[in-house]
Amino acid sequence: MQRILSTDLAAHEKQTVTVAGWVHRRRLLKSVAFLIVRDAAGLSQVVVTDEGVRAQLEELTEETVVEVTATVTANAAAPAGVELTEPSLRRLSGAVPVPLPFELHRPALSATLATQLDHAALALRHPSRALALRASAAATAGFRAALDRQRFVEIHTPKIVGTATESGANVFALDYFGRSAYLAQSPQFYKQLMVGVFERVYEVGPVFRAEPHDTSRHLAQYTSLDAELGFIADHRDVMALLTTVVAGMTEAVAERTGLAVPEVPAEIPSVHFADALRLVGAAPDEPDLAPAHERELGEWARREHGSEFVFVTGYPMAKRPFYTHPQPSDPRWSNSFDLLFRGLELVTGGQRLHRHEDYLAVAPQPETIAGYLDGFRYGMPPHGGFAIGLERFVARLTGAANVREVTAFPRDVGRVGP
Amino acid sequence: MQRILSTDLAAHEKQTVTVAGWVHRRRLLKSVAFLIVRDAAGLSQVVVTDEGVRAQLEELTEETVVEVTATVTANAAAPAGVELTEPSLRRLSGAVPVPLPFELHRPALSATLATQLDHAALALRHPSRALALRASAAATAGFRAALDRQRFVEIHTPKIVGTATESGANVFALDYFGRSAYLAQSPQFYKQLMVGVFERVYEVGPVFRAEPHDTSRHLAQYTSLDAELGFIADHRDVMALLTTVVAGMTEAVAERTGLAVPEVPAEIPSVHFADALRLVGAAPDEPDLAPAHERELGEWARREHGSEFVFVTGYPMAKRPFYTHPQPSDPRWSNSFDLLFRGLELVTGGQRLHRHEDYLAVAPQPETIAGYLDGFRYGMPPHGGFAIGLERFVARLTGAANVREVTAFPRDVGRVGP
Repeated sequence: MQRILSTDLAAHEKQTVTVAGWVHRRRLLKSVAFLIVRDAAGLSQVVVTDEGVRAQLEELTEETVVEVTATVTANAAAPAGVELTEPSLRRLSGAVPVPLPFELHRPALSATLATQLDHAALALRHPSRALALRASAAATAGFRAALDRQRFVEIHTPKIVGTATESGANVFALDYFGRSAYLAQSPQFYKQLMVGVFERVYEVGPVFRAEPHDTSRHLAQYTSLDAELGFIADHRDVMALLTTVVAGMTEAVAERTGLAVPEVPAEIPSVHFADALRLVGAAPDEPDLAPAHERELGEWARREHGSEFVFVTGYPMAKRPFYTHPQPSDPRWSNSFDLLFRGLELVTGGQRLHRHEDYLAVAPQPETIAGYLDGFRYGMPPHGGFAIGLERFVARLTGAANVREVTAFPRDVGRVGP
Repeated sequence: MQRILSTDLAAHEKQTVTVAGWVHRRRLLKSVAFLIVRDAAGLSQVVVTDEGVRAQLEELTEETVVEVTATVTANAAAPAGVELTEPSLRRLSGAVPVPLPFELHRPALSATLATQLDHAALALRHPSRALALRASAAATAGFRAALDRQRFVEIHTPKIVGTATESGANVFALDYFGRSAYLAQSPQFYKQLMVGVFERVYEVGPVFRAEPHDTSRHLAQYTSLDAELGFIADHRDVMALLTTVVAGMTEAVAERTGLAVPEVPAEIPSVHFADALRLVGAAPDEPDLAPAHERELGEWARREHGSEFVFVTGYPMAKRPFYTHPQPSDPRWSNSFDLLFRGLELVTGGQRLHRHEDYLAVAPQPETIAGYLDGFRYGMPPHGGFAIGLERFVARLTGAANVREVTAFPRDVGRVGP
């Protein structure tokens, strides 16, 4: 019999149907037993009164995969107003040993994060963990859809590079057919060069940082949502694009997961770095914003503009990567920006240099990255872009305290499995 | 003035407009000069009669980025029936040195593939190379759309793994915070384990093979389109899904690029390995199909079924990876398949083992991959899936002789840059 999903049961009242899924929970009472089956869509309640079926159920430990053929019966007290009665059961998986490392049927996982990560294949089945990964998928789909609507082309670029293109720090080295190579820390130069081909490009892919610190925000591998577009006037065109993209991402998350998402204003408030320093009462020669400053700016944007988002523009050139375009009116500042969400940095972006000679003038060791810089000899239009760290974005949207909670199988200084 | 695309010119006849793009070609005749500007959408012809503008044009070498403000004038002989007259020109990029490594304005690139790859940022601008990458983007979008329609969830899995999960051969080793780790050769186990979370999952991402042979089909990094689904009866459910997915991919390529694509039958003809050996006149104990056999099967499918595609099922267990599910009626054979397209293997897939004890019985060194196999202790439904190599798929669709022609910045035994 064709299997149906838990969420379709109500449409089949009084019919015999088959559902399948995981034994989420059993309650073996004196005269009756209840079985809660979890499938990808939700939960079904199965009522067992037959003694033979009950004996069978006693062997079906939590997380065993079962197929249930039964009658759909109205019961106002059951999930979605129906339950399954007079079931026959069939085990579809191997037997599942007891006890499990932790229980999945409680509203929150009680295991420590480390235990959850050790048993990720189990922990990710918990509805709260699965929901975060669904939000990731939705955010990614929203990112792509927003860019597809504006004629961006998706690209795939090398994750193995011959030289550490952005900086020598925090890079993973590997043995590449007997010589040294590195894992790419970002698709930065590749996406820029592809502006020369398609004008507008994006990539969704893994990036690698040999981050030696064990923090709640850092991963050795994360998913970077990168976009780059040519023929811009300056960084404000990139900020306008990013605003549209972030709105598309939050809408997709709301639509696909039902999670509450912040409203993205049509025009996100923006403050220049120099003004931001004044606003937070910092010294005018501070080279960067401290986390407390970012929180204050978040408060300011909410209070003055009713926005959970705020752009900070014009960061000092000294603190931005060498490919950053300076602010033409005052080259101490840059045509770059950060997007803060609830007082935390969410996205970094800006206008890039586009002339080969400008790269030669500022790259720390241009000869080591000549192979990449050569691409800028062929005419490149003014361009810019941004990169969104998917896991951080989802962590902030869901309120997760640690990016590992929203990552399927995280990698960090202490973990390379499972 | 707001820039418009070359393809929108005809709608602005007699108006003054701005286009921008790359100097694709110049023809400096005696009394008139022609400038062909290339943007992401196509070509525009600009007619220069003014002497000052002509002097300017003489400095604008091929591949310089220019902005042209001019009048749209009908000319039946020009591309799309219009050309740009009385232009003013503005250079947007740095000056581009001459000569270029090769010319881009001819119908085919004359440079050798090696030269093209050395100057990939330039070569990819050639319309034929760019078209192949647009086809890649379209195929990827078609893959995702077909699976999204069937409630698959997109996942992102680790590319750095603690043990070489599938086999120890052809794996890249890296220094992971002072210990050994490896680049993932496929997301195989991760996508299987995620069936336990979402029932149906897919991933688009890079996979890595330290392939020591320099062939036209192998890359050290390629893009794998992976799907896996639970609650199947056997491999035939996977084949039905794959048929839908391949149809979605070819339709998306046709729609977005205009490339001619093969028709995907609603039911692709299928032949069991044992019957395939008989069909091609091979000995009944042959363990695998030779390339000549695959070509013959392709011919057979076209002749007997009018199909460019054919499934071969039941490959000998001895030749398939250990996670392959045997054929229940005869365990010498497997519930796996290859999809051949025009006589070449395009996709491999099948039903997988789903019981932990079955993995322990067949994995070559189960203790080395215990961290992954542990996930199978928790109930897993019967499941299966497939992996499509994006570059091979696009090479076969476009008729490219070498996968490097359809890869932006390929990596192989001899190449780790640009």
